[in-house]
Amino acid sequence: MELTLPYDQYLALHRYKYLALYHALRAAILEGTLPGGTRLPSTRRLAELYNLSRGSASQVYEMLLADGYVQGETGRGTFVSEDIFAATHQETHEQPLSPFITNEGGASEAAEYGEPAHLPLSAWGKRLAVASAPARIYEDFGGEVIDFSSKGMQMVHFPYSEWKSALAYAGGKGGTLLESAGPPQGDEGLRRAIAAHLRITRGIRAEAGQIVLFSGSMQGIVLLTQLLLDPGAPAVAEDPGFHGIRRAVEVTGGVLIPGTVDESGLVPEDWNARLLFVTPSRQFPTGAVLPLERRRALLDWAQRHHAVILEDDYDSEFRWTGRPIEPLKALDRGDRVIYIGSFSNTMFAGLRLGYAVLPQPLAGPAVAAKALYEPLAAGLLEQRALARFMNTGGYRRHLRRMTRIYGERGRAFRALLASQLGGLFEPLPGDAGLHVYARWLGRAEAFEAFRAAALRRGAGFRDAGLYRVAPGAPAACFYFSHLDLPSIKEGMRRLKQAWDDVQNAT
Amino acid sequence: MELTLPYDQYLALHRYKYLALYHALRAAILEGTLPGGTRLPSTRRLAELYNLSRGSASQVYEMLLADGYVQGETGRGTFVSEDIFAATHQETHEQPLSPFITNEGGASEAAEYGEPAHLPLSAWGKRLAVASAPARIYEDFGGEVIDFSSKGMQMVHFPYSEWKSALAYAGGKGGTLLESAGPPQGDEGLRRAIAAHLRITRGIRAEAGQIVLFSGSMQGIVLLTQLLLDPGAPAVAEDPGFHGIRRAVEVTGGVLIPGTVDESGLVPEDWNARLLFVTPSRQFPTGAVLPLERRRALLDWAQRHHAVILEDDYDSEFRWTGRPIEPLKALDRGDRVIYIGSFSNTMFAGLRLGYAVLPQPLAGPAVAAKALYEPLAAGLLEQRALARFMNTGGYRRHLRRMTRIYGERGRAFRALLASQLGGLFEPLPGDAGLHVYARWLGRAEAFEAFRAAALRRGAGFRDAGLYRVAPGAPAACFYFSHLDLPSIKEGMRRLKQAWDDVQNAT
Repeated sequence: MELTLPYDQYLALHRYKYLALYHALRAAILEGTLPGGTRLPSTRRLAELYNLSRGSASQVYEMLLADGYVQGETGRGTFVSEDIFAATHQETHEQPLSPFITNEGGASEAAEYGEPAHLPLSAWGKRLAVASAPARIYEDFGGEVIDFSSKGMQMVHFPYSEWKSALAYAGGKGGTLLESAGPPQGDEGLRRAIAAHLRITRGIRAEAGQIVLFSGSMQGIVLLTQLLLDPGAPAVAEDPGFHGIRRAVEVTGGVLIPGTVDESGLVPEDWNARLLFVTPSRQFPTGAVLPLERRRALLDWAQRHHAVILEDDYDSEFRWTGRPIEPLKALDRGDRVIYIGSFSNTMFAGLRLGYAVLPQPLAGPAVAAKALYEPLAAGLLEQRALARFMNTGGYRRHLRRMTRIYGERGRAFRALLASQLGGLFEPLPGDAGLHVYARWLGRAEAFEAFRAAALRRGAGFRDAGLYRVAPGAPAACFYFSHLDLPSIKEGMRRLKQAWDDVQNAT
Repeated sequence: MELTLPYDQYLALHRYKYLALYHALRAAILEGTLPGGTRLPSTRRLAELYNLSRGSASQVYEMLLADGYVQGETGRGTFVSEDIFAATHQETHEQPLSPFITNEGGASEAAEYGEPAHLPLSAWGKRLAVASAPARIYEDFGGEVIDFSSKGMQMVHFPYSEWKSALAYAGGKGGTLLESAGPPQGDEGLRRAIAAHLRITRGIRAEAGQIVLFSGSMQGIVLLTQLLLDPGAPAVAEDPGFHGIRRAVEVTGGVLIPGTVDESGLVPEDWNARLLFVTPSRQFPTGAVLPLERRRALLDWAQRHHAVILEDDYDSEFRWTGRPIEPLKALDRGDRVIYIGSFSNTMFAGLRLGYAVLPQPLAGPAVAAKALYEPLAAGLLEQRALARFMNTGGYRRHLRRMTRIYGERGRAFRALLASQLGGLFEPLPGDAGLHVYARWLGRAEAFEAFRAAALRRGAGFRDAGLYRVAPGAPAACFYFSHLDLPSIKEGMRRLKQAWDDVQNAT
């Protein structure tokens, strides 16, 4: 074992090396750096490490033994005493932690905490602390709750053995491929596979060189916002819309212009801005599909204002009826659209892989931005595995199967919502995605009472108010992708009970 | 197959749906969106997708067939013609790409390219484009060169089967663990394993909550610099030093104060700055070890100036003689030191995993910064695999074996350098790490001649001038970790020949 001791400090205080070493070891044991039960180096090794005679090294251990800090067992070596450990270990764990680090999520606490004393943050860091913190993505109600506010998939439907083969393939024979490092832009094979996939399924003509891979689409959104938006500059985002976008704008220092959303999605206006965020294929969270005239109007607006449109196509893969909607990027003749896609929803929650298809003049700056944070591609193993999975057809087969499964669940959910809670919620139409957005038809005050009653009955859903800037009528997001049909039924039964509870109480 | 067509556009132009669909399909084929050989949907599916009668759908295919755009094969379906493809495919690939995206590396080209027309970058984006671009980390001389300027390891020495088991374990039974998503701070198990490892091997007392995992140490360095440094604010970095640090400061907009480095590392001064970057355990690139008095002086300076020290401990794991050096973080009583470590060197090049141990008041802001870009942990599979690898002792065994191997290579390299090129290079002392830093003893002009001659003879090394801000005498970095002993010998023989070439030419 190689151990590091505060030896130099004690050498400055003590005349003899063996005394310095004795004190250094003693301090390390008392401070818990060397926990109880730690096996210490042999006297021969200790002598080597600290340039002592072997006799002096033995003397150090004998002094520690006499004090009870260590225990010697003939033939087995010298160990730090367990009793000493018990006291110091306790102490270590009782150290008060900063309010930030008591919670694993961390980020949401940052908003409530000012600047640390004498460790001043940059203006960016201060904006980070005050910007609206993102909601915890996975709300945690406990074991028994049927939670319509989580998303993701059930791993039972994921072709895990195929994915394992892809991972093994990506590692190479004997791990040879792991030796190499990928470009910051991401594995070229995966970028080619994405380009081919987008060409066929989304009508987007892109070269692999225009695609940059990110560790999740949010990394791409934040980096590109930083690349394009100056502090004080206006940017348009849908309201209601994805809170992560708002946060990206606020932390960069940009000024948010909320864009009106109606039943057909974002309403085009002649905004004075250089950057627009939009979810045309399936507005988040309402699920509205942006009509062609509006898509055209947005592109015209961008052309007139020399603006960039960031199109977030976060879950349109799962369209179970009708035909896919043509993305803005496919209509874009002025090369003004950044298209953002993600594999986090289509594959599994633990795989963080997003990408951007960039206008040609932005491809270089975007790669440079990515390369600043990650000079070599991170997550190369999973990138290569995904390329393999796509190239062998596994991804398409998986999407087809999941689209069928999610379609069944979505239809079942809508039917149950209509029959059980038809008077309470009005779902917006939709034929894709992983969630249903539904307006609350009752009084606003009753919404919170219902949400609380639902939790008491063991059913959760997401308050869509999270996604709003302007005040508006209550609404809910119901995610169904992670729930099988019996769970959806049971969840709806609980919601119905909860509403009965609310009515009985009033 | 789900395909997306510019249907809506044509619907606006043509009176009948079938005509709009005909033109939309024709355009998609001509533009290469539907490449030759693509199988088109059945007439039944086409009718469904576009809400036509089946007869109209058949008519569309018959028109395309008559024009030669598609080929129909009885019982097999309708396919896009290959001839059409040949022309359009050619055209697609001949599109001129932006200067950025012709090269996979990308980042280094960004510096030579201004702002794209009408797509204005933010001030941050502009700084990104002009800041000194990082050198390509893996220089590429071709197949036959023995390249002392690369680093990394030979995968033959990596315990790949153990790592594969760890990956399989991390995936869980049937992939169940992949379903879940980790906190932005990184997998808690790995953070605990790192805390335990640092406590024993580096004398650092840290809780898992003070550790944040990054996709490589550079991501951590850039994010923390952004968190702490304002545009216009001064920051101290070693000169010579890691160019990535300089770039992090420049892109953030900070003002770089070069810190003098002598044979003992960074020379403490009373800088007027709030941020200092230092490599005390093994100065990069010289390999100097910072003496205790200087380490103390830096901590005192930080205390007086309310400054933060970012300590980059990039490769001190591989210390093959003597005892490990105590990091600043272990001496830090004022909680002013951020300790940065990495697994990219100790594991393999494709694994991008770094971490920061933070002062308690900075832990929360650092997690918030990470969470902004990555709301859920990226690379969770590899994080969990590494935790398993560490907890089962695989990592320690691997480090021990590699330390022995690198020690042999380092000693062999030094001996050969002394015997073959003793008059040309003076290596700085060192007993750790993956490279030797050596001053050039000849005339400055001869250095470039030698480097060029070496490349002609098939041997490369890194010009350490890359790491300097102030002008200075030439020096070289020789990485040996990826070369076995015969290759090191052969490389040195080539360097010797190259020097003979230079002398014969003059």
